[in-house]
Amino acid sequence: MKPVKVGICGLGTVGGGTFNVLKRNAEEIARRAGRGIEVAQIATRHPNAKCDTGATPITADIFDVVNNPEIDIVVELIGGYTLAKELVLKAIENGKHVVTANKALIAVHGNEIFAKAREKGVIVAFEASVAGGIPVIKAIREGLAGNRINWLAGIINGTGNFILTEMREKGRTFEEVLKEAQELGYAEADPTFDVEGIDAAHKLTILASIAFGIPLQFDKAYTEGIARLTTTDVNYAEALGYRIKHLGVARRTDAGIELRVHPTLIPADRLIANVNGVMNAVMVNGDAVGSTLYYGAGAGMEPTASAVVADLVDVTRALTTDPNNRVPHLAFQPDSLSDHPILPISACESAYYLRIQAKDHPGVLAQVASILSERGINIESIMQKEAEEQDGLVPVILVTHRVVEQRIDDSIAALEKLDDVVDKVVRIRVEQLN
Amino acid sequence: MKPVKVGICGLGTVGGGTFNVLKRNAEEIARRAGRGIEVAQIATRHPNAKCDTGATPITADIFDVVNNPEIDIVVELIGGYTLAKELVLKAIENGKHVVTANKALIAVHGNEIFAKAREKGVIVAFEASVAGGIPVIKAIREGLAGNRINWLAGIINGTGNFILTEMREKGRTFEEVLKEAQELGYAEADPTFDVEGIDAAHKLTILASIAFGIPLQFDKAYTEGIARLTTTDVNYAEALGYRIKHLGVARRTDAGIELRVHPTLIPADRLIANVNGVMNAVMVNGDAVGSTLYYGAGAGMEPTASAVVADLVDVTRALTTDPNNRVPHLAFQPDSLSDHPILPISACESAYYLRIQAKDHPGVLAQVASILSERGINIESIMQKEAEEQDGLVPVILVTHRVVEQRIDDSIAALEKLDDVVDKVVRIRVEQLN
Repeated sequence: MKPVKVGICGLGTVGGGTFNVLKRNAEEIARRAGRGIEVAQIATRHPNAKCDTGATPITADIFDVVNNPEIDIVVELIGGYTLAKELVLKAIENGKHVVTANKALIAVHGNEIFAKAREKGVIVAFEASVAGGIPVIKAIREGLAGNRINWLAGIINGTGNFILTEMREKGRTFEEVLKEAQELGYAEADPTFDVEGIDAAHKLTILASIAFGIPLQFDKAYTEGIARLTTTDVNYAEALGYRIKHLGVARRTDAGIELRVHPTLIPADRLIANVNGVMNAVMVNGDAVGSTLYYGAGAGMEPTASAVVADLVDVTRALTTDPNNRVPHLAFQPDSLSDHPILPISACESAYYLRIQAKDHPGVLAQVASILSERGINIESIMQKEAEEQDGLVPVILVTHRVVEQRIDDSIAALEKLDDVVDKVVRIRVEQLN
Repeated sequence: MKPVKVGICGLGTVGGGTFNVLKRNAEEIARRAGRGIEVAQIATRHPNAKCDTGATPITADIFDVVNNPEIDIVVELIGGYTLAKELVLKAIENGKHVVTANKALIAVHGNEIFAKAREKGVIVAFEASVAGGIPVIKAIREGLAGNRINWLAGIINGTGNFILTEMREKGRTFEEVLKEAQELGYAEADPTFDVEGIDAAHKLTILASIAFGIPLQFDKAYTEGIARLTTTDVNYAEALGYRIKHLGVARRTDAGIELRVHPTLIPADRLIANVNGVMNAVMVNGDAVGSTLYYGAGAGMEPTASAVVADLVDVTRALTTDPNNRVPHLAFQPDSLSDHPILPISACESAYYLRIQAKDHPGVLAQVASILSERGINIESIMQKEAEEQDGLVPVILVTHRVVEQRIDDSIAALEKLDDVVDKVVRIRVEQLN
């Protein structure tokens, strides 16, 4: 059989990795796919020093690739929303299949892109858009197809996890570690996407859609970053038997679907609490399978390329299939997507870690307990530290049982009005992830 | 579209679970697959109390199912080699697709079964045969299709892992825990398959074939059980920073493929070292993706059913596809399987934990070091305990660098000839699993 012809748009880190993996493992890949996968054209404005493209035709114009009649599959690796969207839609228009690693594009414009792809009978594959080389989209979409998914929770931003790991292991501050991460090239010069959880929210949006069969709704995801986390809370969490991780959590409840990214206390003995450095992991809980976990490198040149190439093999196999009988883009048939609503964060349910800075007066603890109890909030554990020498304040640290967030918001407002409570109350969500 | 008709052969734990999951999640599954999956017939001699089969036709003869013209997919859940093989071959003969959870059948008769399936253009799906609900076969076969797989290592027998976890956490002996596991129903009355590693070797054989593209060669797998492990070694391992797990390891080397199941020391901070109780986990290392890990319930009614149903959805989607363009049974095209040989255990390479019971004489350590050094074996760490009061023996515990097993065998033979060494030398393999 003739090789499948692939056009790569963008020869940066992932583009270069994809080219290299396709070249190095050409024989192994052809033994699996039953035919070769050949890069017939590359669109890039800059050469990639880590990538010897040899005689492969290069163009500076990405649209040359989508208009090239020779090309069967377009690999979109230019990133960003606008031009990438135009490129992908044009490729679909021209009847070409698409493989992309672009989480922002899929999370924000995926519904439109998949509708167009369906109309044209082509595939848009996006395994590389979430958790790099970990085949977690395939696991959820196909491997757990017999389950009603209850929830998923993931460490899906390597930069954020590197920062939290360093803060915990070395007692360093957020600012210090961020600076180092930028110097090491783990974090972008503008770290907003990583540390504010936007990148994680893009990925979570995608995972939630394929888990629950809902349209992509990035604009409804709740996002809270890690920039305000202090080593104080990292250490108290540790003392209580928890680790703090920046988690994306999606949970199905009767009222709707929770879709939230935020720092989270996890019991220290959970496998996912021990995922360190830049590594990623996603837990998925299904009604039949129980809890499963998928772990690996969430970013990087060749781990991400691994996912791109897996998609290329899948698409190659699907070239001859009936478009109506393929794995649907969002795991569920497009006509069967659910309109179960995304819940606002105030309606989400979680346990909470609270740190209250109180004056060293008798009765503070009773006041705190009473405010929580009036709002129906049960306390799981509580820890009151000795008065600190400098300021005469006693931190009260407690973990609540699960409760709707609105009640915690109300409690915090009441707590902050107490004369004996100084500063803002620190609130961090807690998940057991059994 | 009309529902796909499925016949379940065997209504034990997994059969009952499969029926229940298909029934409970019927709507969710149809939303994914684009059509219903309906159990049209069940073959069983005994009702399953956990399974309300309602109006589903029941027969006592499994061959009624494979001869039923209404049935599209036969689910083989009777277990064992002989009758199951006959059943599966007959189903294929009749042009039916097959889904099975039978690791022994696939590991021992898979080559013959897949050849027959290819001839008839049908699929034999077997995700449930390895690691229960964890979609690890799909991950390796499809999700990592761009990689040259270097090695994989798995905790793939829940009973064995439960025993080792209890031994470590509670200081109990192998015999004690095994007895309890039998009472709890985790272990069979005849525990040989689990504790001697035969069950794990079946699963490892399957994983190695799809990872490296080699025919199934169960008879060449090296198997060593956990029955001789003592709490002494569990504790020394702990003191050296390791955990002991019963691992299946498959590794590709230039000389051939290592295929071995044995107790293994793993650094305690590895994620897989922290997989406890009856849970399973498989690490897979590919040249592009690096190390990945897949974790979940490796057995049980519904976790295994989860994998069976995922296969049913896959087969349902593949009903209309070109048989030559499907995912090959062993991940690689049947004509492209490799004849890279399976290495005998003496040619496998590993690091080693050795425990030598020596008399408390000066110079013993020097003799030990000299025997190892003469055979080119480097010592990574060594620990000599004080003489134990009762018998005046000093245990010498050491971990070597990686070396071919033959050299360790030679060294042990030489060590056991020393006048100052009493008892057999205890030897346990060590893997870093980076």
